[in-house]
Amino acid sequence: MTYGSPDLRRAVLLANQMIPAAGLAQLTWGNVSGIDRQGGYYLIKPSGVAYSDLTEDDMVPVDLETGKVIEGDLRPSVDSESHRAFYLAWPSIGGVTHTHSTNAVAFAQADRDIPVLGTTHADTFDGPVPVTRGLTADECATDYELNTGRVVVERIGDDTAAAGMPAALVANHGPFTWGATPKKSVEHGIILEAVAEMAIKTLALNPAASTPPHLQERHFERKHGPGAYYGNPRP
Amino acid sequence: MTYGSPDLRRAVLLANQMIPAAGLAQLTWGNVSGIDRQGGYYLIKPSGVAYSDLTEDDMVPVDLETGKVIEGDLRPSVDSESHRAFYLAWPSIGGVTHTHSTNAVAFAQADRDIPVLGTTHADTFDGPVPVTRGLTADECATDYELNTGRVVVERIGDDTAAAGMPAALVANHGPFTWGATPKKSVEHGIILEAVAEMAIKTLALNPAASTPPHLQERHFERKHGPGAYYGNPRP
Amino acid sequence: MTYGSPDLRRAVLLANQMIPAAGLAQLTWGNVSGIDRQGGYYLIKPSGVAYSDLTEDDMVPVDLETGKVIEGDLRPSVDSESHRAFYLAWPSIGGVTHTHSTNAVAFAQADRDIPVLGTTHADTFDGPVPVTRGLTADECATDYELNTGRVVVERIGDDTAAAGMPAALVANHGPFTWGATPKKSVEHGIILEAVAEMAIKTLALNPAASTPPHLQERHFERKHGPGAYYGNPRP
Amino acid sequence: MTYGSPDLRRAVLLANQMIPAAGLAQLTWGNVSGIDRQGGYYLIKPSGVAYSDLTEDDMVPVDLETGKVIEGDLRPSVDSESHRAFYLAWPSIGGVTHTHSTNAVAFAQADRDIPVLGTTHADTFDGPVPVTRGLTADECATDYELNTGRVVVERIGDDTAAAGMPAALVANHGPFTWGATPKKSVEHGIILEAVAEMAIKTLALNPAASTPPHLQERHFERKHGPGAYYGNPRP
Repeated sequence: MTYGSPDLRRAVLLANQMIPAAGLAQLTWGNVSGIDRQGGYYLIKPSGVAYSDLTEDDMVPVDLETGKVIEGDLRPSVDSESHRAFYLAWPSIGGVTHTHSTNAVAFAQADRDIPVLGTTHADTFDGPVPVTRGLTADECATDYELNTGRVVVERIGDDTAAAGMPAALVANHGPFTWGATPKKSVEHGIILEAVAEMAIKTLALNPAASTPPHLQERHFERKHGPGAYYGNPRP
Repeated sequence: MTYGSPDLRRAVLLANQMIPAAGLAQLTWGNVSGIDRQGGYYLIKPSGVAYSDLTEDDMVPVDLETGKVIEGDLRPSVDSESHRAFYLAWPSIGGVTHTHSTNAVAFAQADRDIPVLGTTHADTFDGPVPVTRGLTADECATDYELNTGRVVVERIGDDTAAAGMPAALVANHGPFTWGATPKKSVEHGIILEAVAEMAIKTLALNPAASTPPHLQERHFERKHGPGAYYGNPRP
Repeated sequence: MTYGSPDLRRAVLLANQMIPAAGLAQLTWGNVSGIDRQGGYYLIKPSGVAYSDLTEDDMVPVDLETGKVIEGDLRPSVDSESHRAFYLAWPSIGGVTHTHSTNAVAFAQADRDIPVLGTTHADTFDGPVPVTRGLTADECATDYELNTGRVVVERIGDDTAAAGMPAALVANHGPFTWGATPKKSVEHGIILEAVAEMAIKTLALNPAASTPPHLQERHFERKHGPGAYYGNPRP
Repeated sequence: MTYGSPDLRRAVLLANQMIPAAGLAQLTWGNVSGIDRQGGYYLIKPSGVAYSDLTEDDMVPVDLETGKVIEGDLRPSVDSESHRAFYLAWPSIGGVTHTHSTNAVAFAQADRDIPVLGTTHADTFDGPVPVTRGLTADECATDYELNTGRVVVERIGDDTAAAGMPAALVANHGPFTWGATPKKSVEHGIILEAVAEMAIKTLALNPAASTPPHLQERHFERKHGPGAYYGNPRP
């Protein structure tokens, strides 16, 4: 028997399997978690296990308050404490994804925000996707993964800000994305990688490229504003 | 029972499924439509539905004159009004495709026409693939998608011009392509993306690259001129 | 009943199918031929037919002396006359491949030879892969495809030279490759594309990159020289 | 009957099959070996055989002291002597991989070390991945492959150094990687290629990119230091 919601286990497993399917990570890099707010715990990929070997039972339950594993002998992803920092800061999010996807990592390593260069970006991200400040030597030495989450929260802001900007790049590391569900958090990771690749190629063609604000607003609003008209209820 | 021609439903579904197969879009980005000129309607992908979930019955019938959905409870692609602008302007076209393919988007975001750098381009596009002007704040505020179609028509010209240049890049947005059939419009999207990728790499190797006009003409004419000799009747 | 050798038909079909499998072409771009020297004819892909629809019977037999189709109602690839120019110039070759592979096209469009930057290149190509001169307006106007083959032969030289340099880039067009068999000619196309991609990335990192001649010679000789010791007889 | 350990045969075959699966090589490029230290021999891919044709029985047993084939009529990879140089120099390694993966080759051809630009790199490589010096004309003329291995050993150092830096780029050639097992050596090849691709894109965005030493140390130590806490015992 395993701890917690079977539905959440399944959702977190499926979301983790989206990472290799979308080409967002090599080997065992990358991890997704999903939270049960009522239960006060989240489920996360175990550390270093191949995606093809993962089962629902492998998802590791972690206590939201203490960060400790609730049940089982598998260690959670080393990035578990970063996920926890997000869940504690932002009550509205339901899932978190971390990958080392190539183009997003390139911006993180270059210490450059991803600028808003078009509607593909504006459809999802309400402004440039920011790079965090680098962690200090002290922040690296103690509680490194928790501090990684903290610099993201410091850069993004409160729960409302996190809804409008569901992604950040940790300097010299890589992307974290979040969303209402585990699946949504991976989708934001997929979009972020596509937007980053487009941006690298755009900047190669025109280093001064930019987008007018009224186009940005229109696109973000038609998907996320009060009068949003994108999509269909069915799927 | 569903509205309109079963053959057109099937053709529009198959053309939409070519988008993920050809790697032209992530998630639910991208859409294809096809028109029944006699019937005065076109069929288009529903908004935000995953390609793998699409069925023939999901294709949304839209009235060519009014832009209103004729039957069913699915909303059409948010880009439906852009497609309608093309069908109204160009009587000869039978299908329209919109994607966010990476390399074509890069040119759209960089606000650069794709120059004619070789025969791969000249085989299909009779000159540089143009970027539209940006939409004004007013054009973004009201009838945004229809105005998106209108700036493309403004840039391309009449029906004859649209036959020689079956593609345009909307500034800071991405590519639209069209053709005699839904399938042809997607094929033009595939070619556009290939040509854009070649152009980015060519310009990296030689920023001053160009093609002599007599080579351009020869290639366009051998496929599309009065004495065209490319292809076979059978397939 | 179909004209010529069933074995050659099969070899030419399989070689053509390697093109999409190796990602060397979109849609129906690209073609392979193979020659029967005794019979005085070559078999080549029909023009504009999808790779997935090709059968052995579709391979079009063309007379080596006249360039005319010997049998059947399918038109040969529009590039048939270019292939014929190579077979006439170089008695040792048995197959020819033409593609529009992205990175090789980039060099052709940039009007730059692919320099020898390492052993991957030197293993197959005994020097820089050359770009031809552009065709004149007259050469484009009459016998365009035959003239395309002729400028390649003009640039490469005689049969011995063609054995040491089984590839060329037609300016503003793309790559042609050849070899002892149809399969070998496609393999040279695969290698050329890989080498071109490596070269673009190498030049981005170091515009002055080069390789010492003694390393080039060693690699070419260990595969192709009198004391070659690469490979095994079995496969 | 075949020489040596069936388990090692299987491990070396599977590791070789990882090369095309991970997209690290075209055609028959690339090879993996694994060593039986007690038996004093290693098994290596035969030269020029297609990955899809390989069987366990094809793995060629080579004597560690003499470099001679112990059994069978298949020739070993031409790079066998390079592998042997590594096994002789570094008693702790159990497998060696050589590929011509595109991005790693680009750094080798550009004669540039891969700098430490982020945690993806630091997780596996304890510093910049070095390029060797070029081989002299004499080193190319005699015992070329053995000398290739020797310049790598010269650049990397002793067994301890090889554990912290399980990869090197041979100038104007390409990557060699090694590890405790054949599989580990291929995984290092996969990571190296991913890190090289990220680095090329990072340097395009910011030619002066770098990583603070305390972040590098933290990441290398959490996976490889005395208090390492990455991974799970099970897989």
